[in-house]
Amino acid sequence: MKWITILVLFVVIALSALAALPFASGHADDGGSPIFGIKLPAGYRDWRLISIAHEEGTLNDIRAILGNDIAVKSTRDGKLPYPDGTVIARLAWSYDPLAESAQAFGHLQSYVAGTPKNGVQFMVRDAKKYASTGGWGFAEFDDGKPANEAMQSTCFPCHQIVKARDYVFNRYAP
Amino acid sequence: MKWITILVLFVVIALSALAALPFASGHADDGGSPIFGIKLPAGYRDWRLISIAHEEGTLNDIRAILGNDIAVKSTRDGKLPYPDGTVIARLAWSYDPLAESAQAFGHLQSYVAGTPKNGVQFMVRDAKKYASTGGWGFAEFDDGKPANEAMQSTCFPCHQIVKARDYVFNRYAP
Repeated sequence: MKWITILVLFVVIALSALAALPFASGHADDGGSPIFGIKLPAGYRDWRLISIAHEEGTLNDIRAILGNDIAVKSTRDGKLPYPDGTVIARLAWSYDPLAESAQAFGHLQSYVAGTPKNGVQFMVRDAKKYASTGGWGFAEFDDGKPANEAMQSTCFPCHQIVKARDYVFNRYAP
Repeated sequence: MKWITILVLFVVIALSALAALPFASGHADDGGSPIFGIKLPAGYRDWRLISIAHEEGTLNDIRAILGNDIAVKSTRDGKLPYPDGTVIARLAWSYDPLAESAQAFGHLQSYVAGTPKNGVQFMVRDAKKYASTGGWGFAEFDDGKPANEAMQSTCFPCHQIVKARDYVFNRYAP
């Protein structure tokens, strides 16, 4: 009967693993990003929400910060540094006035996420691999393709301003 | 050996079910909301992101629309009406200027989600139960407690403006 036990175990574990898979979304990409060699993480659009923001000026977007399970657990626990395996995603969309709520309120009331804008950016924690940039790898993908090296080299210098928060600008929105 | 098989199966299934549970978040509430009798959905803070928005004027917040699995599938598929079981959540936070990015850019650049604000609102689809309000039940919870009847009676009249979109203001942000 032992083979039955093993078979049942195998099938249940395989099904559990399958059920835990997120829906695939976003584009796959074979080439890693410049400098850090990061590939577009599969299924990031299904990750849980960390926080949201509006950027003014040239960026002029509305954006969401999503995190993989390690990132979400870490930011909720509020413990620094983020552990290896943390991946934080920044998605952004055009900042569009909503005609229907203007109609409801009698004046311009709402700005909503429109079409994707300013690429999708990631921070990947690997303390050893990315030791020279605070333990973080940075990547931007535009339409699924990694942005060029010039673009990606601007990430870490800017994030140094929030070194005390392990180089992460966002805070968890409860 | 059969009892071993059953025991192993039981343990593995129990562990799988446990692993599939979302982290609990939000407050549980025993009393349903006025008019529609809706209880605060468990684990809604772990739901996937549909879209985000900024509200001006008196509301003055930044907000996220999350959906349960049925809601996310429906809005991605773009098929109306939403099926029974759809639950859409609207979370909102104070709209706070971010000092650290102002420092990075040399001018005020970012507004981010601060503390929870304007309650948490839900739309629950049950075409039969809520037939007189477009098939939707509406609820707002402030600090985990249902808002009063006067507040909740304002939901449906406003949402009628987007009747053509099954009474839902938001659109999926890809």
